[in-house]
Amino acid sequence: MSSYQPQKSDRFAFGLWTIMNTGRDPFGVETRPPMSGLDVITELGRRNVYAFEMHAEDLVPERASAAERDRLLAEARKRMADAGIICVNCGANVFGHPVFKDGSLTSHDPAVRQLALQRYMNAIDIGVELDCKLCDLWWGRDGAEVDAAKDPVEAIKWLREGLNYLQAYIDKQGYKGYRLAIEPKPNEPRGDTYLPTVGHALGLIASLDKPDNCGLVVEIAHSRMAGLNAYHDIAQPLELGKLFGCHLNAQKPLRYDQDLRFGAEDLKEAFFVVKLLEDHDWKGARSFDAHAYRTADRQEVWDFVEGCMRTYLILREKVQRFNADPEIQGLLKELRCENQSAALPDFQTLKAKAFDWDALARRKLHHERLDQLTQELLLGVR
Amino acid sequence: MSSYQPQKSDRFAFGLWTIMNTGRDPFGVETRPPMSGLDVITELGRRNVYAFEMHAEDLVPERASAAERDRLLAEARKRMADAGIICVNCGANVFGHPVFKDGSLTSHDPAVRQLALQRYMNAIDIGVELDCKLCDLWWGRDGAEVDAAKDPVEAIKWLREGLNYLQAYIDKQGYKGYRLAIEPKPNEPRGDTYLPTVGHALGLIASLDKPDNCGLVVEIAHSRMAGLNAYHDIAQPLELGKLFGCHLNAQKPLRYDQDLRFGAEDLKEAFFVVKLLEDHDWKGARSFDAHAYRTADRQEVWDFVEGCMRTYLILREKVQRFNADPEIQGLLKELRCENQSAALPDFQTLKAKAFDWDALARRKLHHERLDQLTQELLLGVR
Amino acid sequence: MSSYQPQKSDRFAFGLWTIMNTGRDPFGVETRPPMSGLDVITELGRRNVYAFEMHAEDLVPERASAAERDRLLAEARKRMADAGIICVNCGANVFGHPVFKDGSLTSHDPAVRQLALQRYMNAIDIGVELDCKLCDLWWGRDGAEVDAAKDPVEAIKWLREGLNYLQAYIDKQGYKGYRLAIEPKPNEPRGDTYLPTVGHALGLIASLDKPDNCGLVVEIAHSRMAGLNAYHDIAQPLELGKLFGCHLNAQKPLRYDQDLRFGAEDLKEAFFVVKLLEDHDWKGARSFDAHAYRTADRQEVWDFVEGCMRTYLILREKVQRFNADPEIQGLLKELRCENQSAALPDFQTLKAKAFDWDALARRKLHHERLDQLTQELLLGVR
Amino acid sequence: MSSYQPQKSDRFAFGLWTIMNTGRDPFGVETRPPMSGLDVITELGRRNVYAFEMHAEDLVPERASAAERDRLLAEARKRMADAGIICVNCGANVFGHPVFKDGSLTSHDPAVRQLALQRYMNAIDIGVELDCKLCDLWWGRDGAEVDAAKDPVEAIKWLREGLNYLQAYIDKQGYKGYRLAIEPKPNEPRGDTYLPTVGHALGLIASLDKPDNCGLVVEIAHSRMAGLNAYHDIAQPLELGKLFGCHLNAQKPLRYDQDLRFGAEDLKEAFFVVKLLEDHDWKGARSFDAHAYRTADRQEVWDFVEGCMRTYLILREKVQRFNADPEIQGLLKELRCENQSAALPDFQTLKAKAFDWDALARRKLHHERLDQLTQELLLGVR
Repeated sequence: MSSYQPQKSDRFAFGLWTIMNTGRDPFGVETRPPMSGLDVITELGRRNVYAFEMHAEDLVPERASAAERDRLLAEARKRMADAGIICVNCGANVFGHPVFKDGSLTSHDPAVRQLALQRYMNAIDIGVELDCKLCDLWWGRDGAEVDAAKDPVEAIKWLREGLNYLQAYIDKQGYKGYRLAIEPKPNEPRGDTYLPTVGHALGLIASLDKPDNCGLVVEIAHSRMAGLNAYHDIAQPLELGKLFGCHLNAQKPLRYDQDLRFGAEDLKEAFFVVKLLEDHDWKGARSFDAHAYRTADRQEVWDFVEGCMRTYLILREKVQRFNADPEIQGLLKELRCENQSAALPDFQTLKAKAFDWDALARRKLHHERLDQLTQELLLGVR
Repeated sequence: MSSYQPQKSDRFAFGLWTIMNTGRDPFGVETRPPMSGLDVITELGRRNVYAFEMHAEDLVPERASAAERDRLLAEARKRMADAGIICVNCGANVFGHPVFKDGSLTSHDPAVRQLALQRYMNAIDIGVELDCKLCDLWWGRDGAEVDAAKDPVEAIKWLREGLNYLQAYIDKQGYKGYRLAIEPKPNEPRGDTYLPTVGHALGLIASLDKPDNCGLVVEIAHSRMAGLNAYHDIAQPLELGKLFGCHLNAQKPLRYDQDLRFGAEDLKEAFFVVKLLEDHDWKGARSFDAHAYRTADRQEVWDFVEGCMRTYLILREKVQRFNADPEIQGLLKELRCENQSAALPDFQTLKAKAFDWDALARRKLHHERLDQLTQELLLGVR
Repeated sequence: MSSYQPQKSDRFAFGLWTIMNTGRDPFGVETRPPMSGLDVITELGRRNVYAFEMHAEDLVPERASAAERDRLLAEARKRMADAGIICVNCGANVFGHPVFKDGSLTSHDPAVRQLALQRYMNAIDIGVELDCKLCDLWWGRDGAEVDAAKDPVEAIKWLREGLNYLQAYIDKQGYKGYRLAIEPKPNEPRGDTYLPTVGHALGLIASLDKPDNCGLVVEIAHSRMAGLNAYHDIAQPLELGKLFGCHLNAQKPLRYDQDLRFGAEDLKEAFFVVKLLEDHDWKGARSFDAHAYRTADRQEVWDFVEGCMRTYLILREKVQRFNADPEIQGLLKELRCENQSAALPDFQTLKAKAFDWDALARRKLHHERLDQLTQELLLGVR
Repeated sequence: MSSYQPQKSDRFAFGLWTIMNTGRDPFGVETRPPMSGLDVITELGRRNVYAFEMHAEDLVPERASAAERDRLLAEARKRMADAGIICVNCGANVFGHPVFKDGSLTSHDPAVRQLALQRYMNAIDIGVELDCKLCDLWWGRDGAEVDAAKDPVEAIKWLREGLNYLQAYIDKQGYKGYRLAIEPKPNEPRGDTYLPTVGHALGLIASLDKPDNCGLVVEIAHSRMAGLNAYHDIAQPLELGKLFGCHLNAQKPLRYDQDLRFGAEDLKEAFFVVKLLEDHDWKGARSFDAHAYRTADRQEVWDFVEGCMRTYLILREKVQRFNADPEIQGLLKELRCENQSAALPDFQTLKAKAFDWDALARRKLHHERLDQLTQELLLGVR
């Protein structure tokens, strides 16, 4: 058996915030000491992690002076070089401070919307200084519990306005290759978030001034919080060339945001996510956005880190086996029919065509057998 | 108080299938006798219903002869004229027959995909003969329980191919003003449906050959089956000019498809849906896609019909009250700030702008009071 | 219309923690200043609130000295007398400190389980000093994300052991009329809580040494977090004489714990909850366990308080109308059949009895009409 | 590797209805031909299945003559003897016919409640004739969409009355060792079922005349339809000696009843269910209550049957590995602390005991590592 040791070439990434997490939750205080973003960079690099993601605020405090900012960024660049690790996403924290309590880009207050844009511009600038090419927008507070208070039609217009403004800023600055992404989530901390799913974000993106430059960061847990199939949810933006990032984690469906270690729930779905990324040779970093259980101490956080990467590597090996398994591939070949590439007939031909409905209905689909073989492959008994 | 009697000018509609429903479910047989689509047309018309929706198969059996088809359509036109009722949507049933058991437009079998297209073309033609301008596609079987069997990337390509083909057919036939719509649903009868939400459908539509001609039919129950906010879910396509139809009903979130009488669950959400359609002066029919409880007999089905329309009219009146309520409007005015239309500052100005974070955070939002007033208005005590 | 002003005789109660809540959540810091438990007592009393609930720690810090404890309790008694308010439940906070991070009564560590018992005994003693007769146990951390780590069979035994110990303590101390209650919740902050629903708690209680002295505190939001019908969930313990408390609030089903203002979601379910309590003349306090939105400031918290009570009073009036409505009561009479009290036939008679299945199946149930009339009554249009 | 071939000694069972299922669902007709219950008995026996479960109506039609009944039961006994298979549960179908459309034991109509009792007595008698010792009651229709129509307090009383009546019948008949069980389900086909979970059923059982003779049949899918942890849900009745049966299958949480092949979803939860039954040496049959996908033909149904049993055997082997894995067992030993059996201190000692909160909070729990090792064991890489 393989050792499942991560290599830089595996392109794994973690959000700085995932390691910085101290275990605080709505019902209890911290269970582990804080750790600075700079130290996280160093420690991740040491463990053969390829890249990190961050909120600008993970390194530079919200209202730091210019000098403090520059000093921290210089130190970050040094740490990155020393540890051989890069930054693949730099977003902004526009959800923690009370000023954003009713939203950032969708606040009713024009000043708050402008402050949010300022924060995003700050994050973009910081990202550029760290050679990062993506700003992922997660607008945790842009939603509602009180629909009487805000018109969702207006909220969508504000989101569009904000995204267009940020894109214009990127263009103006000449930040080559720099892109924006939306990371949707259905709820929590708000009752219902605006643009709750991957699909809703795609719908908005199509209406932007420069739709090609804005894509998605899809997070498994966020799809599962809406009871959706995360594999399908990643496939749609991938097919459209809009999968700009991927947050791998785990979650029991339809409950509070758990952000569990990748693979901790639903191994079959996790397997198909890996299969999708690998079979389609997707080029992005395999980013983990999760955190250790609140029961973990500072040291056990590294068990969490190691576990995420090992599970990915194990599942990647399973994908190779699946693709090489003669019985599985035989069933798939039978299932998939031949002549898939034939063009559709012209309208008159098709309208007149006689079909043998009952014969077509009799085709064997082998779904029970195929799913069983998949599970046995996952269980390591074939 | 108003009598809440429906008028043709209220533009109410019902799916023929909603009345034809006989109460059969996975655990039990029919509880009421069948009723023909033709008789439903007549009876709806009599009750001041403005329009109906249908599957072509509700009137013309799947493999009817051309003569039988023509006879039935002639009779339908006569019934429509007599009852003063129009048809606003004619889709196809591509989910009932075993031939579609693994999907219609996404079947692996090219012949099944072609048969599905033939059924849709048939539905479009029948719609045109009834002066209908919309074909709503609900692809109930296009999904999966066994992700090993089908690549969702491929499934999306087939859906796009099918929609483009149907659009080309409409163009070729010269069916002026005829449009297509997708009606998404997250699951049931399949484990996970492809394009499970309003958003996912918008994402696909943006990639069609003629995106402007394809929109959405949003169904409240389908949004709620994914735990989403139906009000938000209708607002997004409305904002984009893509709300081609609306299926009003009710549903407890995150369980089997209940298709309850409009207003039977979550009066507040139903109120905001009505408010959205009325405030934005949306022109479409107020269609009900639901059915009477299985405990209802044939006669009680009409209680269900009457209830849907009465609840809409009651809520429409509540919208007027809400919009005229001085205290509610006062709070909203305070919430919404002034200067909403001011243009955003240029980049340098915004980057340099100093914000008083704490002062901004102190702005009163009145959410508790506003929601309470809304509920009291709904309860009829203000 | 009534003024819907609360009176002491309405027996409303709030948890001290509901007012003390400062708006902190997993993604953001406090949005309103703290308020002491003592001040909450005074302010609630002033507003004609009849009673409060508390965790011992809301008044007496976790490791206060005996002198500090006595001083604080003396002050509390004075505030209670001045404000004319009583305490109806005093539980313990065994979820906030890291020592309880893997459970209180179900920790693997015997010392932690003993500490939890010590905390509960402390809460019982404090309750007794405040003339309170109930200790409600909410064991937020007694659950698991990692089922490999703990045997749920063992966890149940520990919960039973702990409850029996506390009951023996109450008996030993001679605390007359003092009772215990379990407050179940399906998840959050743990992935899956032990005894997740009202029913599971009833199952355990039946196996205690003194089952009659332990009951339930049922919380609407906790039932809805498992997708259950809160009306049914309160009815079962009420029927068994085990409804020792009731936490009224609101929640969108199957998402993070929202603890919304009573009536803010699902007016129909809230109505039936009120109807159940009123029709059965339930004697307990009408307690609200919810908190103001994070968007509310300190002052708006009182809007939340007022709203909970007003909505209860409005719904109580609706119950009277429902019970007096001739059409509704006529339908119910028809539905309910006569001869309900007749004894069942003996076995041989019943085995031989011939039933006219089809005639029985034809009985009208009027469900559509009845639900519609209920909704119209709620909407204030009948 | 083992061959994972089922043996009679593995005590596998299937419901007759699981094989008889023809693929009909709310949106489509049958996809495979019917199969008689008698033939299912023969075919299951042939495949080394140990036992079957049934509804009386699976063998004897609802209103069969006495002669027809006797003939069919004689034939069944012959088939059972020939195939070496026994019957472990015989319930009644009180959900299919319209007479039960508003419930069986909770119908408002006393005649319907009596008919339901007659059906259950019939099922008990038939079970006795087949040497079966259990009648499992699943009351699919005993629930509500319209809470205005039925008082849940009354519904619970009717359920109690019915269960007590059936128990008295069993006693009167002298059916030695014969027991009753409740099989709870949260919803579908009714909006909300009375006694929706394992716990709620335990709560009722405790209030029966003879609580010891009534237990539970727990079904994985039914727990997951309420978002509950099926492992925990089976553990509670097992701990109480109330696990009279177990329905193994799979289900995506919080959607329509899928009844998937055992192991098809959530391998980790399935593993812990197997571990619980095996570690506690539970004596009941390992029953599968699921059905083949609607896409399966008659022949593929046997792939489904084989898959259920193979997955159980694979997981049973994993349980042995888990219990023998030195690293896992080492972590568990560390986790579980020593001195678990020490008695609790007396009250005064415990009240006075000083705890070092912070030291206790520092104990390592190894949850990340333990869950990771479990997943790697399941994946067959350790």
